[in-house]
Amino acid sequence: MLFNHNKWMNYAILLAKRSKGITGKNPPVGCVIVKNDILLSSGRTSSSGRPHAEENAINSVKDKNNLSGSTMYVTLEPCAHKNLTGMSCAKLIAKSGISEIFISCIDPDPRTAGKGITILEKNKIKVYQNYLQGDCLDIYDGFFSRILNKKPFISMKIACSLDGKIALNNNQSKWITNDLSRNYSHFIRSQNDAIMTTSSTIIADNPEMNCRLAGLQNRSPTKVILDRYLKVTHDFKIYNSLPNTDILTYSFLEIAKNFHKNKKIKNIKIEKGLSNEKYFNTIFNDLAFRGINNLLIEAGSKINTILLSLGLIDKLLIFRSGKIIGNDGLPMIDNLNIHSMYSVKNYKLSYLRTFDDDVLEIRKFNK
Amino acid sequence: MLFNHNKWMNYAILLAKRSKGITGKNPPVGCVIVKNDILLSSGRTSSSGRPHAEENAINSVKDKNNLSGSTMYVTLEPCAHKNLTGMSCAKLIAKSGISEIFISCIDPDPRTAGKGITILEKNKIKVYQNYLQGDCLDIYDGFFSRILNKKPFISMKIACSLDGKIALNNNQSKWITNDLSRNYSHFIRSQNDAIMTTSSTIIADNPEMNCRLAGLQNRSPTKVILDRYLKVTHDFKIYNSLPNTDILTYSFLEIAKNFHKNKKIKNIKIEKGLSNEKYFNTIFNDLAFRGINNLLIEAGSKINTILLSLGLIDKLLIFRSGKIIGNDGLPMIDNLNIHSMYSVKNYKLSYLRTFDDDVLEIRKFNK
Repeated sequence: MLFNHNKWMNYAILLAKRSKGITGKNPPVGCVIVKNDILLSSGRTSSSGRPHAEENAINSVKDKNNLSGSTMYVTLEPCAHKNLTGMSCAKLIAKSGISEIFISCIDPDPRTAGKGITILEKNKIKVYQNYLQGDCLDIYDGFFSRILNKKPFISMKIACSLDGKIALNNNQSKWITNDLSRNYSHFIRSQNDAIMTTSSTIIADNPEMNCRLAGLQNRSPTKVILDRYLKVTHDFKIYNSLPNTDILTYSFLEIAKNFHKNKKIKNIKIEKGLSNEKYFNTIFNDLAFRGINNLLIEAGSKINTILLSLGLIDKLLIFRSGKIIGNDGLPMIDNLNIHSMYSVKNYKLSYLRTFDDDVLEIRKFNK
Repeated sequence: MLFNHNKWMNYAILLAKRSKGITGKNPPVGCVIVKNDILLSSGRTSSSGRPHAEENAINSVKDKNNLSGSTMYVTLEPCAHKNLTGMSCAKLIAKSGISEIFISCIDPDPRTAGKGITILEKNKIKVYQNYLQGDCLDIYDGFFSRILNKKPFISMKIACSLDGKIALNNNQSKWITNDLSRNYSHFIRSQNDAIMTTSSTIIADNPEMNCRLAGLQNRSPTKVILDRYLKVTHDFKIYNSLPNTDILTYSFLEIAKNFHKNKKIKNIKIEKGLSNEKYFNTIFNDLAFRGINNLLIEAGSKINTILLSLGLIDKLLIFRSGKIIGNDGLPMIDNLNIHSMYSVKNYKLSYLRTFDDDVLEIRKFNK
């Protein structure tokens, strides 16, 4: 009998992608259980992270005897640490009757990191590792970055003209890209755990920074505001847009606990006088500590330029239209003072698509 | 019987495309003759323009009796004016025995412009007009522009960084795009009748401005140099690169006929003190008069900016890499001093492809 391992793992990958941006600090995982090449059940990481995908998949098999001799396909190594019911996913699988398992990525979390596989193998389950790993890694950019680098995976969204400008010289930017692009950028927001902007962008544009796509509103990310002197008053839209997500402000000021009346708003004090590098790394480490895997930045060219020259941008999402604004417009990236082609940063193309006349280019930093 | 009209016309379109850039002032035409849905013969416009595609196709049928009751597919209306042997293509077809003809585009040349079809119909040939015209029009951008607007169809090639820069602030531009992109830009040269640059670009970069793709060298376009004070001496590569194509210089100076020793070099004197608009229109009208259908511009941001703001660029070919140069680099388009999004020029996407990590975007002016 010919088994469709590819098909089933791809199904698990699709399930994982569906959970992206809503699993809190937990990675989004997809899991499929198959017997004699027929689907028994499937599961994905629950909103907020628990129960895990494997537990969901096992629990949705009514007659547990059916699990005997079945095959599990899962996008990430099953955890070796205890879940809410006191058992790790690896143990749950071990005692389920499942006889073999295809795993795409190995979990870098030190509580698991190979220990899940050890438990499975000790229990005589046949384990296939790194299966279709290349198709799956993108999903875990954020989780891996948080665990291994202690910072979120940082994406920067830019909407620009054909000549790379984000506004006219009088700051006008409505609209350089079309409504299809702008809609898709809301989808991108929904796929990130947090969205970061600055007080200057808020004061200039008064953005809502939520996901306003019908049906995906509750996937709006946590808002992060770099507001060194707490200039953004609470009447700006970002403080009032729905849904009522967490808001983090980073400032030089310590504020009374009741300054932010809404409990979901929290201010984190940052030491004054840090270098740009230290300032941003402090913030990114703090965000990782708070469980943010994927951070989207939507701000102006000043912060874009600083982060880019520090090599802190992992991914660029560039929406580009066919409009030509001219060099007196506002640049997507400011002066970098580069004198040799060898010092130029390079971003590798990872995705390209059109929205009517606009082009979306997604590129990853080529370290 | 089911006839594959689509297939045969598409074959004719492919033949026409093969001739692009080598048919002189004549439009590149593809022609296919089919009987009982079986190919009898095919032809395309000869290099330098004569004989026409229809004549070539008819001549390559050995037994002329076979033509009786056959169908011709041709990308452009057969001409109504005499060819070298004293007969128009329309008449040649009329007396050939061909009984029906599918024509994609109507010839705007006043010597034909519908007269070809009249001749065919008078001779009882069934004519289908505008067949797959949408798939064919791109081929005749240049020819239509020369005939109807008295100027070539003008394409501008730009190789730039992700942020729209064509060089570092020290003029270094080797290499922003990769070798696949640069190879393809030679192919683009081969598809144009002439390539235009300026004395400043030549003095800065010393380009050859030919097509150096193996096998396509003889498709190198005529060179056009905007050299107002004849600053480009004959030791620059552009005067010495092979093959030995025509070179036109446009300058304010009148020169002795033997100044350019090579007969293929010709200087055209332009009146001094013209506005940019008049200056360029004079040159473009002259190029159209000389039979240039498709003109490619490869120059610096100064001339790019002038032509763009005059609305004279019909097509943009932008090769873009993933490198980020910063706003102190040289811009693809200089200041335009635009204060309202309504005044911004818009180019519609017509083609998008990748060359490894580079992206080629082809856009047409949305008048």
